[in-house]
Amino acid sequence: MKIAVVGLGRMGMQIARKLSEGGHEVIGYDLNEAFVQEAAGYGIKSARSREEIIATFGGERIVIWLMIPADYVDGELDKWLELLPEGSILVDGGNSDYRLAEGRANRVAETGSAWIDVGTSGGVWLYENGASLMVGGGEAAFRAIEPVLQTLAAPGGAYQHFEGAGAGHYVKMIHNAIEYGMMESLAEGYRMLKEGPYKNINLADAGEVWQHASVIRSWLNELTRDVVRENPELEGIDGKVAENGECRWTLETAEELEIELPAIKASFDVRLASLEGKTNFATKLLAGMRNKFGGHPLNVTPGTDIAKSGE
Amino acid sequence: MKIAVVGLGRMGMQIARKLSEGGHEVIGYDLNEAFVQEAAGYGIKSARSREEIIATFGGERIVIWLMIPADYVDGELDKWLELLPEGSILVDGGNSDYRLAEGRANRVAETGSAWIDVGTSGGVWLYENGASLMVGGGEAAFRAIEPVLQTLAAPGGAYQHFEGAGAGHYVKMIHNAIEYGMMESLAEGYRMLKEGPYKNINLADAGEVWQHASVIRSWLNELTRDVVRENPELEGIDGKVAENGECRWTLETAEELEIELPAIKASFDVRLASLEGKTNFATKLLAGMRNKFGGHPLNVTPGTDIAKSGE
Repeated sequence: MKIAVVGLGRMGMQIARKLSEGGHEVIGYDLNEAFVQEAAGYGIKSARSREEIIATFGGERIVIWLMIPADYVDGELDKWLELLPEGSILVDGGNSDYRLAEGRANRVAETGSAWIDVGTSGGVWLYENGASLMVGGGEAAFRAIEPVLQTLAAPGGAYQHFEGAGAGHYVKMIHNAIEYGMMESLAEGYRMLKEGPYKNINLADAGEVWQHASVIRSWLNELTRDVVRENPELEGIDGKVAENGECRWTLETAEELEIELPAIKASFDVRLASLEGKTNFATKLLAGMRNKFGGHPLNVTPGTDIAKSGE
Repeated sequence: MKIAVVGLGRMGMQIARKLSEGGHEVIGYDLNEAFVQEAAGYGIKSARSREEIIATFGGERIVIWLMIPADYVDGELDKWLELLPEGSILVDGGNSDYRLAEGRANRVAETGSAWIDVGTSGGVWLYENGASLMVGGGEAAFRAIEPVLQTLAAPGGAYQHFEGAGAGHYVKMIHNAIEYGMMESLAEGYRMLKEGPYKNINLADAGEVWQHASVIRSWLNELTRDVVRENPELEGIDGKVAENGECRWTLETAEELEIELPAIKASFDVRLASLEGKTNFATKLLAGMRNKFGGHPLNVTPGTDIAKSGE
């Protein structure tokens, strides 16, 4: 397939590479010239403008994969809607709020094209291991981009379609809320090992034994084990932990539905409190895990933009 | 090695089988004649009394693996202390409170023998997959039983030694507390899929996509996926969820240490509330997971003893 990847950041670059090496004809696009150069190093052609992207498709169906921060999606969409011919497909692969998908999908549908929301998990390991793809939108557009999904997804059942505008981002949002809770549970437990009555417990040994045949074996435990193995005292980590939106949106939705999510809520509140200075070994571990799976910075630097995707 | 396994319940039977098939000379012991017969079917000899067990060791070092409910450990220990010669090793492989280990270890040490606490995870899959073994106690006794640990443990680093009386059970206790939090996080998330704004989300498809390359991929997610695949409406599950002690002990220890464990505490409180009748799709899922990994009954039947081990 021919496909344009708009946004060659941490996630977009991996997606462009994986698609290109999987035999698709990929056109990259990013305002940051350094990213464009890096893509060229991987043999990925890029365009200088949206018009140029459209031209490269010739008469073929245009498929644009947007991999940009959630805040930029509407602005990007506006620009594409002015240019795209009928029958095009726009994919929102970032971490957008599912509640915005229906309006966007309707706007795109009015122009005769299709909007698909894809929740993408895989973090900095996406290129190596493949992605986990939660695909929303309509059936026809899903089928049209399926060759691309097959290339991006990890082996096995790593892409699934959930009918409806925003359904893919909804499933991804819930994934991230679960992630907050699992991370917090692990962080609290490891802290109890570190600060408990036995002073000589090797946390990496505990993480190792838990990773084999135990009930809590998981990728997050594996990463936590690696964090404490490499940096047992978690030196250089301030323990302030950002939240990227999805867990907050989950809690808002749960409140509307009058569903209580006590563990997820507790995990979210810990992050907010950490940003106010309530940090400890457990919140430092959260930062360590986020760094391992998503490449997020170990410390939240005031005034800088916190990485918005990758979870 | 020669070893006696005392308690041929769900966990003890798997341990006896695995050790026997691994080339160890195993003597089983249980007051329940049906379990003794089942063991015989696996070619495991059994003894009718503690004295008979001791006799079967001849002059060799006696190693007794206790796999019995936590409440019975002290009574069992009393009886063995009257009989065991110096140099014997008693292993507590169940889910004992780590705070009791030091007293027990001292009592055993006074008779010239050794007490080792082993936290055992693996549930009903132990025989097939091997166990995750968190071994406390002293170094010498650990080395003495290492051949047995090698046979029981899953491939890889599935057994580790944590020096000190009760340290093995402490690490296991923390494992179980993390387990409560991870289970609750998953249950809350799946409930949000079930009762959220998209009515047609296939929960098993979500579990499947999450199991491949996503951040939350884990054994517990795999089991949750299986639960909702086999029984999408969770029919026949009342949603009352037992607690087995370890999470309560963790919270008691945390309070003494003035460490807050908000996610683990929330997960524990959900179980208590469920027993008071506050049940929902999420608590039913917890019961479904416990059934999958530990063989626990799907419903807590009033007046019956709740299974005490296997987590």
